[in-house]
Amino acid sequence: MPEAVVSAGATDEVTTRLRDLIRDVPDFPQPGVLFRDLTGIFASAQGLEDMATAIVAAAPDDIDVIAGLDARGFIVGATVAARLGIGFVPVRKAGKLPPPTRSMAFDLEYGQAVFEVRDNAIVPGQRVLIVDDLLATGGTARAAGALLRECGADLLGYAFLVELIGLNGRESLVDDPAAGGVPVRSIITLPA
Amino acid sequence: MPEAVVSAGATDEVTTRLRDLIRDVPDFPQPGVLFRDLTGIFASAQGLEDMATAIVAAAPDDIDVIAGLDARGFIVGATVAARLGIGFVPVRKAGKLPPPTRSMAFDLEYGQAVFEVRDNAIVPGQRVLIVDDLLATGGTARAAGALLRECGADLLGYAFLVELIGLNGRESLVDDPAAGGVPVRSIITLPA
Repeated sequence: MPEAVVSAGATDEVTTRLRDLIRDVPDFPQPGVLFRDLTGIFASAQGLEDMATAIVAAAPDDIDVIAGLDARGFIVGATVAARLGIGFVPVRKAGKLPPPTRSMAFDLEYGQAVFEVRDNAIVPGQRVLIVDDLLATGGTARAAGALLRECGADLLGYAFLVELIGLNGRESLVDDPAAGGVPVRSIITLPA
Repeated sequence: MPEAVVSAGATDEVTTRLRDLIRDVPDFPQPGVLFRDLTGIFASAQGLEDMATAIVAAAPDDIDVIAGLDARGFIVGATVAARLGIGFVPVRKAGKLPPPTRSMAFDLEYGQAVFEVRDNAIVPGQRVLIVDDLLATGGTARAAGALLRECGADLLGYAFLVELIGLNGRESLVDDPAAGGVPVRSIITLPA
């Protein structure tokens, strides 16, 4: 598996530039985990521009609204929404949004977490693209997809800046009838 | 004090449109607090556009990079960075960024919290605008300003979508020599 695989929406040149801005940090947040630090992409004018260009090129047409996942997905998602000239819906960790909200629990490696959206955040039938910085096991993305569908979203798909290979994240999204069956796009793929 | 005061960078029309998208939620997150829910601005294509236009118009010239505060400041800040075609630096709550980081503790109503940035997030001398959704007491913004200056930032000022009046947030920023003495701009002012 090559270190960076060109994916839908990005040229070789853009992918290489983005890959060069990713810093690999061993043993964070725990021993044995190789953390992919994407803040170098965000901090660079060219990186942020390349990221938005690549995701927009990979995204489906006719998106009504971008949903971004707390908290790094806010950076990626809001950048893409601004580029497309459409709105942005934050999918938040529990307790951050005022009532009324809708929520969805999901499993973490240890224990559970809960995602919330504003009760009327989605107009039923709105075409929604879920955007996040990184696809690993897909647990958070799956919960977000199921939650947004419960709110009436027409889920168009998922777009990630980075996809980690070997954790079955993509498969878990595609195979879950509540959240999946929609295109999963990523700009850069890296080994987990 | 009128409900919405036109501030630098926004026309009456834009300010009124933005104000109409803010939802007031009594007694959140605790009894007696009037929460200003700004997610209606983010979710609206026109709202996100108005927000970016107003903040960019109010912002100083020659910004090199936008710093946004975890987590709603990521939405506002990344939108503004995308509009300006410059980079974005997330100022994060403790434990989210891989090492090496720089950190700054600050007081909350109960206890303390810590902000972190990537150690080399700022190139010394870079001109930085701090962006957040809401200015209340100014505690988090002050900590972010002091932290970014420690990293070598040339702090140009602060920009907020909403400023709550009556909590001395603006004064606390201007009066703090470590973080202040720089322009504080807000698009909409509301009573606390």
